[in-house]
Formats: sequence, C-alpha cells, structure tokens
Amino acid sequence: MSDTAPAQLLAVLGRGVVDIAVPLLSADDLGVTRGDGCFDAVRVTYDARGKRAHYLEEHLARLARSAAALQIEAPATASWHELVTTSLAAWNTPGEAILKFVLTRGLESAPSAPVGYLTITQSPDHAAARRGVTAMTLDRGLRSDAFTEAPWLLGGVKTISYAVNVAARREAANRGVDEAIFRSSDGFLLEGPTSGLVIAADDRLWTTPTTGTGVLASVTIAALFAAARQHEVATGEALFTPADAYEADGMWLVSAIRGMLPVVELDGHAIHHDPAVTSVLAKATGFPGIA
Amino acid sequence: MSDTAPAQLLAVLGRGVVDIAVPLLSADDLGVTRGDGCFDAVRVTYDARGKRAHYLEEHLARLARSAAALQIEAPATASWHELVTTSLAAWNTPGEAILKFVLTRGLESAPSAPVGYLTITQSPDHAAARRGVTAMTLDRGLRSDAFTEAPWLLGGVKTISYAVNVAARREAANRGVDEAIFRSSDGFLLEGPTSGLVIAADDRLWTTPTTGTGVLASVTIAALFAAARQHEVATGEALFTPADAYEADGMWLVSAIRGMLPVVELDGHAIHHDPAVTSVLAKATGFPGIA
Repeated sequence: MSDTAPAQLLAVLGRGVVDIAVPLLSADDLGVTRGDGCFDAVRVTYDARGKRAHYLEEHLARLARSAAALQIEAPATASWHELVTTSLAAWNTPGEAILKFVLTRGLESAPSAPVGYLTITQSPDHAAARRGVTAMTLDRGLRSDAFTEAPWLLGGVKTISYAVNVAARREAANRGVDEAIFRSSDGFLLEGPTSGLVIAADDRLWTTPTTGTGVLASVTIAALFAAARQHEVATGEALFTPADAYEADGMWLVSAIRGMLPVVELDGHAIHHDPAVTSVLAKATGFPGIA
Repeated sequence: MSDTAPAQLLAVLGRGVVDIAVPLLSADDLGVTRGDGCFDAVRVTYDARGKRAHYLEEHLARLARSAAALQIEAPATASWHELVTTSLAAWNTPGEAILKFVLTRGLESAPSAPVGYLTITQSPDHAAARRGVTAMTLDRGLRSDAFTEAPWLLGGVKTISYAVNVAARREAANRGVDEAIFRSSDGFLLEGPTSGLVIAADDRLWTTPTTGTGVLASVTIAALFAAARQHEVATGEALFTPADAYEADGMWLVSAIRGMLPVVELDGHAIHHDPAVTSVLAKATGFPGIA
C-alpha cells in the first residue's frame, strides 16, 4: 500500500469496464465471507512496444484449473480474453501494471452465479528487489508430501484464502527481512508466499516439484525453463534444504509481476549472486535486466 | 445455500443498517483479494423471550483477538455493540438467525481504513443435525504441535481465509458424509471446519487443547464447560485419536450457530450416543433439546 493511490481500472464479466470507486461485491459474497474463490495475476507493460499482457494464456489456463479444483463454474476463457482486450484499450498508464483476475463462488446465503472481474493496477517500483533481496525461511508446518492424497488442502490451487501468505510476509517485514520462503516441516525449501523458487546448482536450473508439496505451478518458471532448455541449459525439479542453497550458484524468487528476485541472503547466510546471470534470466521472460 | 433467499440484514460500522442488495465492498478490498480479514458468528434467537444475541461479549472478544493477531486495527467494541443493538431492532424474522461480523484490512492498492460490517441471516433448519450427524476425518497435514512457535500460521485466528475449511466440507458431502473432522498428521482429532469438538469419556467432558494445535477457542464449548463444572461434571483438554473416540461415551461437534451435533458415526464406526445427554448439553448453552 502506498501513500497515494496508483492508477487502477476495474472490469467485470458481463459488464465491461466500470467505475472502481463504486463498490462491486455483496457483503454476503463467499469471496469475502469464506475466502472462497481463486485469482491469478498477469504482468502488463505499456511502452514503446505497445500494451502487452505477459503469458496471458498460461495464467488464464491456471485460473481455470484453480476454479475446477474449487468446483466453481468457470467463465469461458473467451469471455476473459474479451474483457482483457476491452480493459487494455482503456488502460493508459505507461510502465508496468498488475492485471489481477478474481473469481468468487458468489453469494453465501442466496442462489447466485460466480462473480468474475479483473483489476489493472499501476505497479510499484520493483527495481530494488530485482537487484537483490534478503530472505528468511518460515516453517509451513506441512511435510513436503502432505498434499499427495489430500485434495481438500487445495495444494497448487491459487485460492484467495491468502491470510497465511500475508502473515508470512508481515513476519519477514517485522524482522527486517525482505522476503519469506516457506519450508516444509521436513526441512525443504518450498516457495515464497507470492513467488516460486529457482536454484542454480550443478549447471542446472532447479525448481520445487509441485506434486505432493502443494506448491503452485509457476507460469513464469515454466517459461524460464523452456527458454533455458532452448539455450541448452538443463532444468529439473528437486527439493533443496536451506543448507543446500548456501552452496548453490544462485537462488531466485520468481513472480509473474516482480520478475526474478535474486536472493542474496537466506537466514543470515550469504547466497552466491551473479547479476549478469539474473539479467539473462530476467530478459528471457520479458523483464528488464539489471545494471 | 437454499433455493430461495432467506431473510437477511446488513449493517456497516459508521453507517448503520443499509440495503444488502447494494454492493458494499470494493473489488480491491483485501478481504476478497487476499482473504485478509477475520470474522465471528453469533446465534440470534427471536421468540417469546424477545431478541437475543447469544454470548455476544465472548464472540466480540474473540473477534478482537483475531484482529490483533492479524495486526488489523480493530473497531472499538462499543461501536460493534451499538451496531448490534440497531440491527436487532431492525430484525423482525422470528426463529433462529446467524449474526456474522466481518472485518477486512481495507483496500489493497490505496490508503484505507479497515472495513467492518455485520449481517443477520435467517438460519436454515438445524433440527436433523441436532439429532445426529455422520462424520469422517480428513488429514489437516499439520502436526498437533505445528503452531507452537509459528504465529504466521495464524493458529486459533478466525480469518476469512476459509477455502480449505469449505473444501473439507465439500469433500465430506461428496462422500455422502454429513461432517468433516480435521485430524493432525500425527493422528489426533482436532476440530471440524466450522465447529469445535467435545468428547465424553471417563466421566468427564473433554475438548481439544488450543495451544500448539491451531484449534480455534470455542466460545460455546467454554460456556458448556463452565455450566458442566457448576453441575460437578469435570472438564479437561486432551488429544484423542479416532480409535479413542470409538470407545467414548459420546462425541459432539459444537458450533455457536448449530449447537451440539452428536456424532453418531465416525469413519464408518458407530459412536455411542445418548439423546438425553445431548439435550442436557444443548439446553445448558441455550439450544433446544432433542425429542
């Protein structure tokens, strides 16, 4: 939250662009009374190359998977695409922005259809984080295989029930650390509260396996790994301990919005960081390099 | 959700009773974009004895504790009381109702104060559940001591991030079972997704300890246990396994709204049930007895 409001736009399925100053949601909406819904977020850039919503298809596909896992009737992807087109046409703020899709189950106490909308919000400046962040691990309390046969735990589902994620970020901030990273109760690094994890080691790029761990499948990491393989850099999935990370060649928190954030310190231990490598990874997925 | 809308009323802090058909919340409210807020629920009865909000003080105290744990600036309790008084005066539907308090952190992208409101909603008929429910255990994935030193996991905080609770209820319903009961990864019964747990064994009433388990402190169980001790029935906190429950003298899921729901079957095993005991427990906390 900044001291002044950033530029922001609201568009609602079935209605188009509407005034964001007018309340949208019922007090009885399950999205707020139960956190019962899902979301996804896409980076928008508006520059000399025009307006672009990055990896839009992939994020909409993930949103549809989240809705299916919650047994919420998902709007047709074409409806979302149409709403994005209308919204981008109305968006006139240069620079980076966050396009967020939200889908709630609808009203709690009366028959209702799901509610779907998107917001576009001017991004805060991520330049400092893109040069490097400090991080601390926080125990998520769940084993790295806890989600294997427990679909009700909603592993890998991007629900709007993010209070623990928000609390983890608050805990890190309260301790003067930039970022939290969840670790499993059996000691493995999982993901950040709003980011995925990439580690460079043994001449490969690695990320956390999603099966069993509950970790969200990162659209940006998938794109990064596809680009890496095209350049003959091998990729893989593996569980790393914090001690493994201390010996790694590099470590990044990866977010569709913020990009590749190099972790330069984990739980007080310095992590190896080569800014040139971060620049390569960032540019491979459409983010600016670092100086 | 019923096929027709129940009677419902909305009142907002600082505004009083307003039309619930008019949207209240911004699309950018953290309550919906992050499930970042808390709630509590109180049973309202309107009968020959007048209108009553049961254990109102205790629920408002718990709401204030939830807000403090989330570091949300809580409205003065007196403001909530005033809003409840105004709302009950406007409530004219006889029978049972649910008074729900919701407090969100406010807007995500612009400076804002927390948003606080209450709804009163006509209750569905709980008579069948009050005579007996079937239940199944679902692994919560967390050890019974997982919350001991992990405040970011928000144990015992009644957040609106309830997607897993809703998914657990859906899982039970999909399997043809009335209620879900979470068990810890080390095998102990914890609580229901929207209820606490009471077991009768060894001439005592027992409930799940809240310390370390993440279990919500139940207002209704506290009131029940105070009443029990007045009648020389001992009470205590202990962790039970499902196998312990099969041998118990009785087991109840306890909710401020629904009352004492006797569990008559757990994971396919019959649980001992004496309707006369259930009636005594129900009446001790203001609920109707069962025939």
